Amino acid sequence: MEKSALQKERAAYRPKLPKALQGAVKIEEGTPTQSVDNKDEIKKLFPHTYGMPLVEFVKGESHPSKRLNVGVILSGGQAPGGHNVICGLVDAVKQLHPDNHIYGFLMGPGGLVDHNYMELTPDFIGEYRNTGGFDMIGSGRTKLETVEQFEKGYEILRQLDIQALVIIGGDDSNTNACVLAEYYAEKNYGVQVIGCPKTIDGDLKNDQIEASFGFDTATKTYCELIGNIERDSNSARKYWHFIKMMGRSASHIALECALQCQPNICIISEEVEAKDLTLNEIVEQIAEAVAMRAADGNNFGVVLVPEGLIEFIPAIGRLIQELNDLLAQHGAEYRHLDDEAQRAYILSHLSKANAATFETLPEGVARQLSLDRDPHGNVQVSLIETERLLSDMVEALLDTWKKEGRFTGHFASIHHFLGYEGRCACPSNFDADYCYSLGVSAAQLIANGKTGYMAVVKNTTADTDEWKAGGVPITMMMNIERRNGEMKPVIRKALVDLNGKPFKTFVAQRKRWARETAYIYPGPIQYWGPSSVCDSTTKTLQLEHE
Amino acid sequence: MEKSALQKERAAYRPKLPKALQGAVKIEEGTPTQSVDNKDEIKKLFPHTYGMPLVEFVKGESHPSKRLNVGVILSGGQAPGGHNVICGLVDAVKQLHPDNHIYGFLMGPGGLVDHNYMELTPDFIGEYRNTGGFDMIGSGRTKLETVEQFEKGYEILRQLDIQALVIIGGDDSNTNACVLAEYYAEKNYGVQVIGCPKTIDGDLKNDQIEASFGFDTATKTYCELIGNIERDSNSARKYWHFIKMMGRSASHIALECALQCQPNICIISEEVEAKDLTLNEIVEQIAEAVAMRAADGNNFGVVLVPEGLIEFIPAIGRLIQELNDLLAQHGAEYRHLDDEAQRAYILSHLSKANAATFETLPEGVARQLSLDRDPHGNVQVSLIETERLLSDMVEALLDTWKKEGRFTGHFASIHHFLGYEGRCACPSNFDADYCYSLGVSAAQLIANGKTGYMAVVKNTTADTDEWKAGGVPITMMMNIERRNGEMKPVIRKALVDLNGKPFKTFVAQRKRWARETAYIYPGPIQYWGPSSVCDSTTKTLQLEHE
Repeated sequence: MEKSALQKERAAYRPKLPKALQGAVKIEEGTPTQSVDNKDEIKKLFPHTYGMPLVEFVKGESHPSKRLNVGVILSGGQAPGGHNVICGLVDAVKQLHPDNHIYGFLMGPGGLVDHNYMELTPDFIGEYRNTGGFDMIGSGRTKLETVEQFEKGYEILRQLDIQALVIIGGDDSNTNACVLAEYYAEKNYGVQVIGCPKTIDGDLKNDQIEASFGFDTATKTYCELIGNIERDSNSARKYWHFIKMMGRSASHIALECALQCQPNICIISEEVEAKDLTLNEIVEQIAEAVAMRAADGNNFGVVLVPEGLIEFIPAIGRLIQELNDLLAQHGAEYRHLDDEAQRAYILSHLSKANAATFETLPEGVARQLSLDRDPHGNVQVSLIETERLLSDMVEALLDTWKKEGRFTGHFASIHHFLGYEGRCACPSNFDADYCYSLGVSAAQLIANGKTGYMAVVKNTTADTDEWKAGGVPITMMMNIERRNGEMKPVIRKALVDLNGKPFKTFVAQRKRWARETAYIYPGPIQYWGPSSVCDSTTKTLQLEHE
Repeated sequence: MEKSALQKERAAYRPKLPKALQGAVKIEEGTPTQSVDNKDEIKKLFPHTYGMPLVEFVKGESHPSKRLNVGVILSGGQAPGGHNVICGLVDAVKQLHPDNHIYGFLMGPGGLVDHNYMELTPDFIGEYRNTGGFDMIGSGRTKLETVEQFEKGYEILRQLDIQALVIIGGDDSNTNACVLAEYYAEKNYGVQVIGCPKTIDGDLKNDQIEASFGFDTATKTYCELIGNIERDSNSARKYWHFIKMMGRSASHIALECALQCQPNICIISEEVEAKDLTLNEIVEQIAEAVAMRAADGNNFGVVLVPEGLIEFIPAIGRLIQELNDLLAQHGAEYRHLDDEAQRAYILSHLSKANAATFETLPEGVARQLSLDRDPHGNVQVSLIETERLLSDMVEALLDTWKKEGRFTGHFASIHHFLGYEGRCACPSNFDADYCYSLGVSAAQLIANGKTGYMAVVKNTTADTDEWKAGGVPITMMMNIERRNGEMKPVIRKALVDLNGKPFKTFVAQRKRWARETAYIYPGPIQYWGPSSVCDSTTKTLQLEHE
């Protein structure tokens, strides 16, 4: 493998482990836990994995060496640090007993079902220490949900004499890890299942999980780029940059980037939903900021837009819902009409409120909503270029205001989408340490016979030395929610808390940011240098733990 | 100004100066120079600034202190390091005499003509040391070309008692700097004009200029992102990423990124032109690589596309030329036809060869070429999304091949445009040092009474200590070229040299890169840490000087 200078030097980095995970470790158990909601139902669904205690690792005496084989899976979208979870796991499992074997299932959960795997030797994983990406064993989006899959998986686990499986994934994958743990426990198969909290989206967190890994590195990479774009905007002084930020279901990424970079505007989907804002109201807010800055002679700015915004606008959400139903029922007769007839058809069939919303939409978006459907019959919201939609609508509104004399500046926009640029970045020192520690914690949970737990590392705003490591029963984070039309036990997704300190800090300053040019330029992630630069974590985490 | 941790720490960086510029400096002059071509014409056009010698600075005795005021202008697109040129200039001019004043003209050359300026005090510039962007005094694209502008400029220069003007810009701006130097010399106005080689595009270089500043930092930022996208591609294993790279007139940026990141494919516009490749041939080359990799089970990859590609495809260049003329002549009668009639009209009026090219184009591109014109009547090539155009055409071709059984994989594409993300990045150590040295060189050229020179720093692949600093008569780099229909004296633009080592190194490896997954992940720019990571410059520069 040819390597860059950074790859070579970074390979030598030794992730810092919390004191509690250095050397011999023993486990301390707390009192039994309960799920965050729907206690009785969750308890009934998970008789073998419900109510287990929180556990924490502390310095202890040497373990008797333990022989076991372990499997590991990367599930879902890439997040920086996944390789370090595996490295921590392999190092720790090998330390339990040098004859232990670790197997990686290839291209995600599908690898378990289809029996595609490889052994992860220390030599092999050496190439991947402190690197971004999931290319070590690949990842995939197959969902482990059916008994048939569980049984197919068990075949290969038995064949490879694997006693424990570690699933590194987001909220859905960890939910499924728990279902699998419960199934194997019930069947008495002798296979433990441990989860690991991964996602750049930052929506897998709660009282027990301070952060999902990858959020730190990905947001830092996006902040580097947003800062550069802000600086460009402030130098050329003639463009409004509309930057869409990856993250469908929560606005944590956009909020973190706003806190770090202080752009003029940042839309938070959760707020849009809570205030029942319409698309036009959002457009008006942006246009007002543009006009205000223009009055100061500043015909430039930066706007952050979360990718999932459209779905969070309640009026559009209701419209989409009805459109999905309508087109599912009447698709056949509707499909052959021409554009104008389709529009008329839709307007005449929609409820009054939704028809009104439909009529306010720009033509392109209205067409997109009334056409393409994904295989499940849902509108493909991701095809809507929200950043362009907003700037087009802002431009149209400003044109009206210009005629009324309310806007005298000029408005030109440039669009960006930041996503793939950061998902596989080389992990920051924080994520490198955090992930490695998660991997070691997972190994310790295995060594201590646990199943249905997620590995966790806490107190992460303190020095790495003082981090606390342990495990949380996955059932503890569950409640019952509607997903794809069915009520299911799932890990509760963490949306941006409108009463939380990160959002409130943003709200306290956003008026000033909109008017002034208060940009901050975070620059690229540094792996060496002053600790203030290369060791601090996200504003979100800092504010949540102040 | 609120600042990030990196901004604070980076402010303390002291750019390294070559030994020759440390302490007292004297000037060594070479023999008279000649222009690279059209010697007689250039000599005639520049009687006062032609034939001057190359100069180099070496350690010397202390100067008598020199009282003078200096003006400085940032011209054209942003490039990392511009602030450091100004800091070097201010520091050195203040060292000549503490009562010297430096004035920055605001928002580009227009600031000189319109008399918008501010004094650049050491306190004020302190905020901008080692930062990206041109926000210190702004930049702009006004061209200094007319006697009226020169005279308006002279008014304010006289008023501020300015004896020397430094213009930091690309090839055009430096050409204009030379015209201005000649004009002021002829008029005996007592104002020296000095140029500085700036542009991320890398197309301002020659025997005397090793690199334009900003190329190093911008390409490193793009390489970070390309590496991250490559890693994502290699993890998800299901997408071809088409990445358009900023840079209209030359492919240096794409080539440098290819050398650093080893993507599967990189198109070099200069090669396309030299080989008279058609759009279809380029598409076929890409599709062949896709099919080859699919046969190996690799349905993913990364393609770099230079922004200016379309204009370099000779057949399309010829077509655009004729379309521009055709629509300029017959625009009125043509404009009111409907789509189909317009197409027929164009096909019936074009020459046979150009009509044939027109017919092979995808409908969207054909329409774009036959519609929008900029204020000068030229097609707006920048509106064509080349990266989408190529992937659409590749997809269509692969569909045909699929039917023929020649392609059995799957093809899905994702698009990126990298430009604004890097133009204002925080300058690398190389650019920070290089720019600061350029600023000090400019001051020394001024102190030594030079005009019509560009400040240069050479031997930049050696340690900073050993860099050589001096000046080059701008006329030496000139020849006569057709620009916007007129024959003009201009600095010869440096396109990618198809016989040069960077291109040949690329050619020697690209077959393997296309087939294999030979990605290299450069990671983000580092300002601290191992010298191999934070001090090395571009592959292009290294290969050119091997």
